[in-house]
Amino acid sequence: MHELIQHLFAPLLDNELLRQRDDSCRLEISAQSLAFTTDTFVVKPLFFPGGDIGRLAICGTVNDLAMLGAQPIYLSAAFVIEEGLPLEDLRRIVNSIRLASEEASVTIVTADTKVVEKGSADSLFINTSGIGLIPRDIHIAGQNARPGDRVILSGYIGDHGIAVLSQREGLRFQTEIESDCAPLNALVAAMLEVSSEIHALRDPTRGGLATTLNELAAQSEVGIKIDEEAIPVRDSVRAACEMLGYDPLYVANEGKLVAVVAPQVAETMVSRMRHERYGAKAAIIGEVIAGPAGRVLMTTKIGGTRIVDMLASEILPRIC
Amino acid sequence: MHELIQHLFAPLLDNELLRQRDDSCRLEISAQSLAFTTDTFVVKPLFFPGGDIGRLAICGTVNDLAMLGAQPIYLSAAFVIEEGLPLEDLRRIVNSIRLASEEASVTIVTADTKVVEKGSADSLFINTSGIGLIPRDIHIAGQNARPGDRVILSGYIGDHGIAVLSQREGLRFQTEIESDCAPLNALVAAMLEVSSEIHALRDPTRGGLATTLNELAAQSEVGIKIDEEAIPVRDSVRAACEMLGYDPLYVANEGKLVAVVAPQVAETMVSRMRHERYGAKAAIIGEVIAGPAGRVLMTTKIGGTRIVDMLASEILPRIC
Repeated sequence: MHELIQHLFAPLLDNELLRQRDDSCRLEISAQSLAFTTDTFVVKPLFFPGGDIGRLAICGTVNDLAMLGAQPIYLSAAFVIEEGLPLEDLRRIVNSIRLASEEASVTIVTADTKVVEKGSADSLFINTSGIGLIPRDIHIAGQNARPGDRVILSGYIGDHGIAVLSQREGLRFQTEIESDCAPLNALVAAMLEVSSEIHALRDPTRGGLATTLNELAAQSEVGIKIDEEAIPVRDSVRAACEMLGYDPLYVANEGKLVAVVAPQVAETMVSRMRHERYGAKAAIIGEVIAGPAGRVLMTTKIGGTRIVDMLASEILPRIC
Repeated sequence: MHELIQHLFAPLLDNELLRQRDDSCRLEISAQSLAFTTDTFVVKPLFFPGGDIGRLAICGTVNDLAMLGAQPIYLSAAFVIEEGLPLEDLRRIVNSIRLASEEASVTIVTADTKVVEKGSADSLFINTSGIGLIPRDIHIAGQNARPGDRVILSGYIGDHGIAVLSQREGLRFQTEIESDCAPLNALVAAMLEVSSEIHALRDPTRGGLATTLNELAAQSEVGIKIDEEAIPVRDSVRAACEMLGYDPLYVANEGKLVAVVAPQVAETMVSRMRHERYGAKAAIIGEVIAGPAGRVLMTTKIGGTRIVDMLASEILPRIC
């Protein structure tokens, strides 16, 4: 364990705070409001087109912080390693963590490593917890959606879920589908420059866009109406979903966000988002309506309206 | 998953902050210095005399925060659950988490749950990360031990390791040995009332007292000399260790601390500690010496001196 830490983790993740080597890390923070979140990543397989469990573990927690409008600053990383995990795999993953942390401008300041016997875990699980600073006057929360607000989606849906599934099942499509796994904090910071009239933000991960919209509708006690035609889905993802019997609305994303914003700022917000790397395909996909409370309705391509329900059971286990 | 959260976790862990149900939890903090730590618990078996993985997960992280002199306030809890874990076991564990959180005056403000297939984890792993407030003028760190400082131990060593091992191996001793698993933040707060001249604090968990003293000696670039006679070990633990071939100095504790304090406050500190529930057997066990740097020396009962080395390999895997 000491050798793992000294020769593998330390060189890749080294920084002044992690070097404190005390039981906790001491942090100096002057902000009034902090965001704090935790997530364990158990994705299977560890490597997939467009990412790996390391990149996922950084992006997932960075994004959860960003969804409160926070600037993510400090992360923890805790590893459960199954005996026999190839060191080279672990090194690749820790290197992904380093690269993703740099991209997201976060620092891993505290870490933990546990090794368990073969058969007691599936290769590797990573928990990341994170702290972010919430700027003054920013009050983004799932309960703040109001009738009339516009619903913005930052880009194509379904990429992560289909990329992981195709890797897991050994499926090959004509076009390789890559996970969208990405840190969204720079995108959120750009959005907050446009206006603080962002009422709710959420990243549609497990359960996909449909689940996220249902959660927001329930928390805010409003209805949400979306337009099927407006939702960006890649042809390759749509084709894969058709083949596999999935609805892209329920497939996980790891680099997308849903924003509920005041109507008067929606157009400017989308224009600004499109200048950002991870918002190039941003679009207004619907609006918040007074009711039925907790319901998500969708205008379909053929002109009808259907209810988009919460996912009853997880269609893709171990997707993150 | 939703049902687990709604019916099992929520009723036991409910609080206003956890109820926010956003991707992160928003916290208002005015302090300048924070402590932040993470730990994953993979102890086997889940239940042992004196505690379970739930109590351990709270105490472990609370104690890591307390070892910087911080007042622990907010914790995260992330569960990896193997399919087939009896719900009743999970309920008992989550209830332990609730009770230990109450005892330690901490609040779980953000949580995560992942269920993996049978065979992909060993029953249950819990990660807790935590945030604590470090009072002004407190600068406790592993590198601050100075020659002349006294080394205080808060009580009996070896209880946790032997309790877990005996449960795991089905061993029975005449007297049941219980884990010492306990939150030490109240003890540390009482110690800080006596004096801020606490230079280093550490809880001797994995690797036991010997490993902790070696870490402190290395970080502070000093020697440490301890007196074997002064180290409190229960007769039952000593007997079990002799039978099993272990040295109590290397056996894990989960409710003990080592304090390195200025010589002039050591006696008063120990007296105060003895009034605390988890410090009743506190004793001065040695002192910091100029050198050899990084070395721990022990005056043995028969009057000789021996080097107490770092543990070369983990004698008891999955002890926490």
